[in-house]
Amino acid sequence: MKSYIKHDPWCIIEEGFHPEHNRITESVMSIGNGRMGQRANFEEYYSGDSLQGNYIAGVYYPDKTRVGWWKNGYPEYFAKVLNAVNWIGIDVYINGVRLDLYRCTIKKFRRVLNMKEGWLERTALLVMENNLEVQLTSKRLLSIVDDESGAIRYQLTVTNADAEITIQPFLDFDVKNQDSNYDEKFWDEVCQKAGNGTGYVVAKTKKTGFVVSAIMQYQVFVGENLQNITAQAVEKEKYTGNIQKFKVKKQETLSIEKYVAICASLNHPEDKLVESSTVYVQKVMSKGFDRMLQEQIAAWDKKWEESDIAIEGDIAAQQGIRFNIFQLNQTYTGEDERLNIGPKGFTGEKYGGSTYWDTEAYCIPFYLATSDPKIAKNLLVYRYKQLHKAIENAEKLGFSGGAALYPMVTMNGEECHNEWEITFEEIHRNGAIAFAIYNYIRYTGDEPYLIDYGLEVLIAISRFWAQRVNFSQEKKKYVMLGVTGPNEYENNVNNNWYTSKMACWTLGYTCKSIEYVKNMAPRKFEHLIAKLKFDETKETAQWKTIFSHMYYPEDKEQEIFLQQDGYLDKEQILVKDLPPKDLPLNQKWSWDRILRSCFIKQADVLQGLYFLENQFDTATIKRNFDFYEPRTVHESSLSACVHSILAAKIGYEKKAYEMYLRTARLDLDDYNNDTDDGCHITSMGGTWMTVIQGFGGMRVYDDKLRFSPMIPAQWEAYSFKILFREHLLKIRVTKKEVLIENQSTTPISLFVFDKMYQIDSNSYIVVG
Amino acid sequence: MKSYIKHDPWCIIEEGFHPEHNRITESVMSIGNGRMGQRANFEEYYSGDSLQGNYIAGVYYPDKTRVGWWKNGYPEYFAKVLNAVNWIGIDVYINGVRLDLYRCTIKKFRRVLNMKEGWLERTALLVMENNLEVQLTSKRLLSIVDDESGAIRYQLTVTNADAEITIQPFLDFDVKNQDSNYDEKFWDEVCQKAGNGTGYVVAKTKKTGFVVSAIMQYQVFVGENLQNITAQAVEKEKYTGNIQKFKVKKQETLSIEKYVAICASLNHPEDKLVESSTVYVQKVMSKGFDRMLQEQIAAWDKKWEESDIAIEGDIAAQQGIRFNIFQLNQTYTGEDERLNIGPKGFTGEKYGGSTYWDTEAYCIPFYLATSDPKIAKNLLVYRYKQLHKAIENAEKLGFSGGAALYPMVTMNGEECHNEWEITFEEIHRNGAIAFAIYNYIRYTGDEPYLIDYGLEVLIAISRFWAQRVNFSQEKKKYVMLGVTGPNEYENNVNNNWYTSKMACWTLGYTCKSIEYVKNMAPRKFEHLIAKLKFDETKETAQWKTIFSHMYYPEDKEQEIFLQQDGYLDKEQILVKDLPPKDLPLNQKWSWDRILRSCFIKQADVLQGLYFLENQFDTATIKRNFDFYEPRTVHESSLSACVHSILAAKIGYEKKAYEMYLRTARLDLDDYNNDTDDGCHITSMGGTWMTVIQGFGGMRVYDDKLRFSPMIPAQWEAYSFKILFREHLLKIRVTKKEVLIENQSTTPISLFVFDKMYQIDSNSYIVVG
Repeated sequence: MKSYIKHDPWCIIEEGFHPEHNRITESVMSIGNGRMGQRANFEEYYSGDSLQGNYIAGVYYPDKTRVGWWKNGYPEYFAKVLNAVNWIGIDVYINGVRLDLYRCTIKKFRRVLNMKEGWLERTALLVMENNLEVQLTSKRLLSIVDDESGAIRYQLTVTNADAEITIQPFLDFDVKNQDSNYDEKFWDEVCQKAGNGTGYVVAKTKKTGFVVSAIMQYQVFVGENLQNITAQAVEKEKYTGNIQKFKVKKQETLSIEKYVAICASLNHPEDKLVESSTVYVQKVMSKGFDRMLQEQIAAWDKKWEESDIAIEGDIAAQQGIRFNIFQLNQTYTGEDERLNIGPKGFTGEKYGGSTYWDTEAYCIPFYLATSDPKIAKNLLVYRYKQLHKAIENAEKLGFSGGAALYPMVTMNGEECHNEWEITFEEIHRNGAIAFAIYNYIRYTGDEPYLIDYGLEVLIAISRFWAQRVNFSQEKKKYVMLGVTGPNEYENNVNNNWYTSKMACWTLGYTCKSIEYVKNMAPRKFEHLIAKLKFDETKETAQWKTIFSHMYYPEDKEQEIFLQQDGYLDKEQILVKDLPPKDLPLNQKWSWDRILRSCFIKQADVLQGLYFLENQFDTATIKRNFDFYEPRTVHESSLSACVHSILAAKIGYEKKAYEMYLRTARLDLDDYNNDTDDGCHITSMGGTWMTVIQGFGGMRVYDDKLRFSPMIPAQWEAYSFKILFREHLLKIRVTKKEVLIENQSTTPISLFVFDKMYQIDSNSYIVVG
Repeated sequence: MKSYIKHDPWCIIEEGFHPEHNRITESVMSIGNGRMGQRANFEEYYSGDSLQGNYIAGVYYPDKTRVGWWKNGYPEYFAKVLNAVNWIGIDVYINGVRLDLYRCTIKKFRRVLNMKEGWLERTALLVMENNLEVQLTSKRLLSIVDDESGAIRYQLTVTNADAEITIQPFLDFDVKNQDSNYDEKFWDEVCQKAGNGTGYVVAKTKKTGFVVSAIMQYQVFVGENLQNITAQAVEKEKYTGNIQKFKVKKQETLSIEKYVAICASLNHPEDKLVESSTVYVQKVMSKGFDRMLQEQIAAWDKKWEESDIAIEGDIAAQQGIRFNIFQLNQTYTGEDERLNIGPKGFTGEKYGGSTYWDTEAYCIPFYLATSDPKIAKNLLVYRYKQLHKAIENAEKLGFSGGAALYPMVTMNGEECHNEWEITFEEIHRNGAIAFAIYNYIRYTGDEPYLIDYGLEVLIAISRFWAQRVNFSQEKKKYVMLGVTGPNEYENNVNNNWYTSKMACWTLGYTCKSIEYVKNMAPRKFEHLIAKLKFDETKETAQWKTIFSHMYYPEDKEQEIFLQQDGYLDKEQILVKDLPPKDLPLNQKWSWDRILRSCFIKQADVLQGLYFLENQFDTATIKRNFDFYEPRTVHESSLSACVHSILAAKIGYEKKAYEMYLRTARLDLDDYNNDTDDGCHITSMGGTWMTVIQGFGGMRVYDDKLRFSPMIPAQWEAYSFKILFREHLLKIRVTKKEVLIENQSTTPISLFVFDKMYQIDSNSYIVVG
């Protein structure tokens, strides 16, 4: 755990340079606009430790896998989030010496990510090796208004002498992925050109053939005076640049305003890419940096208006939640149904792939409650469109008859992960994908989605579950053998309670959905039956037999559900009794020791109780929480949020708060010692849930919103906004009361602490 | 399964060239002398499919591992059997055209491995592209008398014209491993020199620094006439060669006799390697090819005298068993306690490492009964000397207090395999290593071994088992969680019957051994206690508690032992009911499907019944065999032998014979479609066991040999020799009687069909 990031309600601030943590800072101060993202690398050359990273949504690379022991069924490749063009680059020489912070004496340094307004700024006072003192300021943004562009204002002032400054703005596609399996580079040049004050590079990914055109234009000012550009063009492979020298007087400021457009063949005809990006960059340059910044601020203001959570009296908690919301909004805007939310977003390469079960389990609730419903719908449609690949994937593993197993990790619907215990056995992802359909419809009331998309996915997933269980003659029940649950500290277990529970829940929900669709849209249902060759009577009968004869492990004595068969055979130790030197287990213990221990990465029984909460009374949840929480090491970023929500529900306020901080500040404080690789983007949806569902106690049942708020001792008040079926609600919770304001034009009825209230349009209630 | 190898009692014969099976032929016709080995590659250039391979015992390379997902505890490298100098090479040009069988019309071809005499011969009648008809004969051996040398007689006759033949004998270290993880070469040149009629290369392995000097000398004859050597020297990196042209008349034979010595720094001072190899090659060249061959034949004759098994009336069975015995004797001679028996011997690269549990479980019985006891002892001492590394290995996985976990795969005592389910969990290897100590002493009566070496290993292994189990509050018994048994089609299971059984057997045997050593050698025992910081009272008390309260899964209804917890939850299908297209499962099914099926790679419950046979009555063995055999797919080369032995014991003669053929002809008929990579050397010990222990019913209990022979219907008779405590016995079994001849100078008493007989020296008995 680290604590060099300054607490502030709206900004992430590094005060004084911390080169030893530079990769972490680069991760947490990443900027993005849903279309692309950029780590907080420096514009000028830096010879110290850094992970260069720019990423373009949807542009990936199928890297050749690296597997020790090939298993039948493995995919041939591992899809990588692709490091793309270095668009921020501005090399600087002052009196012939290259500016490199690693070689400067740093008198002052401050790096700020302004989350309220969506920009990154760096100010530094440096003494170079040639004793020139230089004031550096750079400010940049990736526009969420013009989302194929970015802009930088980069300023240098030599304070103790007149000087000659050589600048070299450039674009460089000659980048590589640090996690490249065989140290290959993934981009080929298509064409490039350096003009005067401009330049472009078009590059194409190997194998996948994504083409991206990056173009820059820039202006230079000395003082207030716009300079003539008479630059020397630099053309290298996959690189375009300009070199020009400027004389500046002592204390006079040289400013470069660099505008970049990055257009991908995903969104433009391939043969028009240069043209498209040229038009684009001219458009944003004609706006100018200041106007772009104004528009950015206004657009972010609107986003915050919809999704902010304010916490009073606890700046660390406030900063944490805003950081999570900000990063989620930077990563995914929901405009493009081909895109999804990668576990590291645009902040690093690690994990590869863009889509995990994280999206359905942890991110959809955030987008549901803070954005137009079409955004969550796009995330569901993404899976719907990949259904045929999920069926192919299941066939590869020996399933048939239209059964679907969605991939654990994917870019395009194909599985691209190969670790058998996860790829083949962590099948619970299918359950989360089914549950997300239910969750979306429950929240939005969008029943037509079930008819037009949802049921087809549900049937395919149910067909998978029905084949994946088998009848045990020994137990006289259906069992599910050889699975890995969300708790990845167990592999290849039998009867993982969570997986079996979600499987049977899916079977039941699918049967109900069939009845619904049959009644509401009989012709569409007939069409679907024919398309899927669905034998309704036979298949649903089989599903009902399975879910009414499913085996679930439990301990009758303690009245708890058991994570899996044999869990109580393990030596029962609690995390608090572990020597601190043994933590984190995943860095200290060998894998077999972790596997045979009782310690839990994230408690999957609790995950199931969270999803299916209304099936269980509070006492049951409490008993299970009391059993599993003390055994959980939270070494998954997805763990703390669910524990926090359940703790809040059962009245464990301190635990709920502890878990809240752990999830909210996971990256800011680098809890798990791994933020250098990138931020844990998808778990940020879980952080949002801890406030809204945990402390706020928000639920939706029977088309009605419900709140049962509590407030942690450390907070004076907190407030958040919720979009629910065209109602914008603002909820404010203090130590004394709950205020709910209906900011929309129609009344709403909802429950607070299980009592129903009606709130008129533009009105509010206070529950004391 | 293939059947192009001709049946013959003493030879392996390829009649007519089968280029499509060339790699298989190269594997099965490999020659070796315990010090090195050579695949049956051609001497001259060959552009068709071939796997070049020469291997030197003890010379390995720690290749950089290729792992998809690193697990804590993995070793940094994977040790590879190292492809070494190509010493057989003789490039040939006739009238300027390179001789290459792939480009010739082959009129006749025959490749013969003579197992009786230990040489490889190839004869061919070829028509070259230039229409010259060429008779080629090559014969070569790796001497088991001068075991750092090899010799080749290579003869060419142009039958239809006078011709000019250019020969280029060479040595080449510029070779690579086909299984190199990152396509690197592993040898660096130290020095090289080409003389006239001679040349040497000294090369050094990267990282490990093994240095090997290879030197050649050769003579050329035209007809009977020794030629003057006036060769052109060829020196390239890691390569030395000679070029010389000879005029030959039509029908006149050009003969090259090439002698090679290969000396390694394992056996010679590094700075004397050139000298040592020079002296060595001169020694063998002065003997000449014919005398080397004579000595080879005589030496093999002696080996066969000790270890032959003759089968009458079944040539396929006869050839199979001799092939197995021959390869075992080529691979390991027992002269050098630093060496061991790799799963592919000197016949291929695959698997890497030299030592698996195969040695203890399948090879030691062969060497025990066919060689001087010091040979089996050397194999035990090999593990004894690596005990400190096994303790380090256990420490790496979190064990302490002198507990030892021997590696799954090793070259030098360090673990060099990284697949968590095997590396960390296939801990049953520790049991086989303990059992081998018992087995060795049982057979040889060498009790001092227990005092001087064995007990120290047993205590370290027992300490491991005692920490590896835990007490289950649920079962009120000790359990062993998270293991992989010999049946590798299950991973990370709980309470694998075999592993738990062997663990407790070890604890019990260690306790007994402590009593024995304490009584027989109290001072040595005191010394050992001090060295090991062994708390006898406390530790043995704990061990006794464990083995008397161990949990073993079983099915009370069917009265069988269960392979592991939950085995009966699986869908119970038999192999005979599988569609043939699904076999072999490991090539057709995804890994998770194999894991959750009931199908067994090799039945580990049966393996346990085999080892600990005297704890169980025949009815018990039969019930378990009847249950497990029909579920076993025998996709491990180590499976069929144990099934054959048990089948013989319980009177299932047809099954015993079926399993015998499967193990004996596994490589000759390429049952598992994988002999192209090399032969399954270690399972050949198991083949030997099927005859001696299976059909012959040989056992040793209470210092007495016992035989209960049976004979398969297909055989008229079979006979074998056994060395038992300085008695050489010949056993001959016919349909009617058993003849046992005592070929030694002292009488022996033994049991036949549970009745005791005394056989005087140089006398025999017949049991009807």
